[in-house]
Amino acid sequence: MLNHPLEEILHPGSIAVVGASPTGRGGGFVTPLIDQGFKGPIYPINPKYDEIHGFKAYGRVTDIPGPVDFVISSIPATAILDLMDDCVAKKVKCVHLFTARFSETGRKDAADLEKELLRRAHAGNVRLIGPNCMGVYHPKQGMAFNENMPKQSGPVGLVSQSGQVVGEIVARSAVRRIFFSKAISYGNALDFNECDYLEYFAQDPETKIVLMYVEGLRDGQRFTKLLKETTAKKPVIILKGGRGKAGTRATASHTASMAGSRLLWESMIRQCGAVSVADIDELIDVAACFERIPKIAGRRTAVAGGSGGSSVQAADQCEEAGLDIIDLPRDIRETLKAEGSPIWDWINNPADFSIAMGEEEAALRIMKLMAEHPDFDLFILFAMPPWRQTKDNFDLDQAMQRYTPVVSTKPAVVVYQDWPRNMTPDKGWFDEVSEQIRGKFHEMGLPVYASVIQAARAAVKVVDYWERRKA
Amino acid sequence: MLNHPLEEILHPGSIAVVGASPTGRGGGFVTPLIDQGFKGPIYPINPKYDEIHGFKAYGRVTDIPGPVDFVISSIPATAILDLMDDCVAKKVKCVHLFTARFSETGRKDAADLEKELLRRAHAGNVRLIGPNCMGVYHPKQGMAFNENMPKQSGPVGLVSQSGQVVGEIVARSAVRRIFFSKAISYGNALDFNECDYLEYFAQDPETKIVLMYVEGLRDGQRFTKLLKETTAKKPVIILKGGRGKAGTRATASHTASMAGSRLLWESMIRQCGAVSVADIDELIDVAACFERIPKIAGRRTAVAGGSGGSSVQAADQCEEAGLDIIDLPRDIRETLKAEGSPIWDWINNPADFSIAMGEEEAALRIMKLMAEHPDFDLFILFAMPPWRQTKDNFDLDQAMQRYTPVVSTKPAVVVYQDWPRNMTPDKGWFDEVSEQIRGKFHEMGLPVYASVIQAARAAVKVVDYWERRKA
Repeated sequence: MLNHPLEEILHPGSIAVVGASPTGRGGGFVTPLIDQGFKGPIYPINPKYDEIHGFKAYGRVTDIPGPVDFVISSIPATAILDLMDDCVAKKVKCVHLFTARFSETGRKDAADLEKELLRRAHAGNVRLIGPNCMGVYHPKQGMAFNENMPKQSGPVGLVSQSGQVVGEIVARSAVRRIFFSKAISYGNALDFNECDYLEYFAQDPETKIVLMYVEGLRDGQRFTKLLKETTAKKPVIILKGGRGKAGTRATASHTASMAGSRLLWESMIRQCGAVSVADIDELIDVAACFERIPKIAGRRTAVAGGSGGSSVQAADQCEEAGLDIIDLPRDIRETLKAEGSPIWDWINNPADFSIAMGEEEAALRIMKLMAEHPDFDLFILFAMPPWRQTKDNFDLDQAMQRYTPVVSTKPAVVVYQDWPRNMTPDKGWFDEVSEQIRGKFHEMGLPVYASVIQAARAAVKVVDYWERRKA
Repeated sequence: MLNHPLEEILHPGSIAVVGASPTGRGGGFVTPLIDQGFKGPIYPINPKYDEIHGFKAYGRVTDIPGPVDFVISSIPATAILDLMDDCVAKKVKCVHLFTARFSETGRKDAADLEKELLRRAHAGNVRLIGPNCMGVYHPKQGMAFNENMPKQSGPVGLVSQSGQVVGEIVARSAVRRIFFSKAISYGNALDFNECDYLEYFAQDPETKIVLMYVEGLRDGQRFTKLLKETTAKKPVIILKGGRGKAGTRATASHTASMAGSRLLWESMIRQCGAVSVADIDELIDVAACFERIPKIAGRRTAVAGGSGGSSVQAADQCEEAGLDIIDLPRDIRETLKAEGSPIWDWINNPADFSIAMGEEEAALRIMKLMAEHPDFDLFILFAMPPWRQTKDNFDLDQAMQRYTPVVSTKPAVVVYQDWPRNMTPDKGWFDEVSEQIRGKFHEMGLPVYASVIQAARAAVKVVDYWERRKA
């Protein structure tokens, strides 16, 4: 066990769910625990019921016979102080407060209630996650706040002020085969704040990459110090909510956070060696690159596999993202010429494969030479769907074999676009085979992107991280 | 009929397909014409066959008994001069050359052949589309270069140096119910160039919005003049291929174009009142906004319907795109207070609907007040999928009714995210109902975007266009 206050809290032996019910959203958090397979006792608390989702229900926390490590509260704020007194009496270690309508309302009485809640918790030795948040997703421990969250664990830790953001990131990442060690939504950060969670993930050996969604900092100085220390060990990717005037206003009513100016924030993040992203999609794109390609040594990039228009645009997009699309190395050209390639003087980087039309062997040969060449730091494989094949003549393994020599040699990312169904006659098959192709690339350990822009922007952030870490 | 050389060419009475075959890509362009329902005679030309795809095949163009208006050539470049002589003899009006490997190879003999081809065409009064291109998609006339292109016509004209780009734009647009008057891929622009196509679309009454993918200009001065004239009448949205060093290199081998510097290009586009976009996705996003909301008078934007984290990010993203997320107007607050709303002092713009949780009526009331308020120029409706509903209790019409008062009052765009299937238990139903919801929004005449960033960036380009057109 890690020597950090959150370690014990994230590994509870038993959980009480206050405000549980047989109906409504997750039965007030009971059914997500069942779905996720929580191993310890689950105690629903609701005086109106004898049983909830197959568990004996209790009137209050103090009625529970055994010990209770972790309490989830979804009762109204008006009843929160009584619950806290019960939790203190029961020696509960941590309360996760889904309960909201505290300081985020902007009202004095609600803010005062929040303060009193914290005072009683501290006095009684109870720690708080939240309030106004979805709490903990910890697949290995069987903890989840929604049904149907992935059962699989992975190397990514996530801490977010918004629970909706956690739900969205976890679900969108799963589609790309990226899984989480733990993900925590912490709302108003009344007790544990961004610093505590970051400190925990910095130490957690199960977490190799840290993702954060932060609206405001409770302790900027400590955060900066922790961030510097953490980024020297593992990448930290941060999405800031409330970057402008209106966003800052919105953070106040969402999680009672005071967001700061965009420029100050960006410069702080950079100085601390962390990676800043603009939205959830980019957050996942960058995480996918770090997860699959821990290190990219430079910006010199080879692109191959697209056709004419897409190759031109790939070059533009890579350069605009900050990659360097160098000329095709002279010795590759000479090798092609010596081998009698009819396009040795015409093909370039990006390698436009419509030029090699109908000359599959030649195209693959060029791809292999590019992937193996030491002048390239990164290979972007522009994988085309099997346009000219059908269900009857398509062989998945054969289609994928062509890529094997490419991906084994250097950091590589795959671009496989989401093609609209109406582009092919056999619509269902095309969707299905595209999913299979993406799955195979995932199995090969490659990050897969829907566009060159996304791939290039993500790769540049990984290059940047390593440049700063070296410096 | 329009008095422009392309008008007659785009309305051929008969088409000969040289290099047609019973197998291979579209039977060398025959099957796309069949699929698209071309009404006139189709003459496959290939001395090896008597019949191709149900049509009598001919050995050469001069063997055809009736008149031939339009010829599609997919034979190798080596045979192109003989074909041109035949076309001249047969008084063909236009040849579309899919045939490639001319100046784009960078080789002198190929460039010389291209010049001789043009000389013979001019001398014989035959016009050329291409070479090295996919040619014409004209749904009303039954002309297409791929099978399964949409049969429906629409108000968008598209001209592109890359055929692949046309195919992709047309297919991706169809998913969003955006259709085309004509779309032309013109490759190396040997005869007709970007100016001729732009001039045609400027005059064409069937075309209300012009999209262009341009790698290089053959006649920059004429283009600038035409662009200024056109943008005073209809929006022109331009995607430039070859914006940087590597992209410029790639345009040379793709369509033998000399691309210019990014900054010069951007400033020229702006001065001419056209809209510049960075990729195909943005091109379609902007086209969708122009097609559904011809005019947006200003930047003051209301956002409603998201939950906490997504509202904060929506505010950031709108501001960063250039929209103005003004404070909730004071009189809306006063109305809410007078009506006894419990969140009158808390709710803001963006209206975070998680604040109104469980108070559906209140949320809809706020949405309506925002949509009707004169201080807003644009309404962004953040539509959430029916998370808490199931196949058994979901009523599509009822779900959509809530939005009716919103969308009838002012320019509105919809954000409906692509949610991953794994977020819901009943996966198939969720995909299906999401498609139905998007379809209903399309029927309501609203542009639908997958993210706030995309919606905001597109709307800003429409605002910009009208600001410059007024100036």
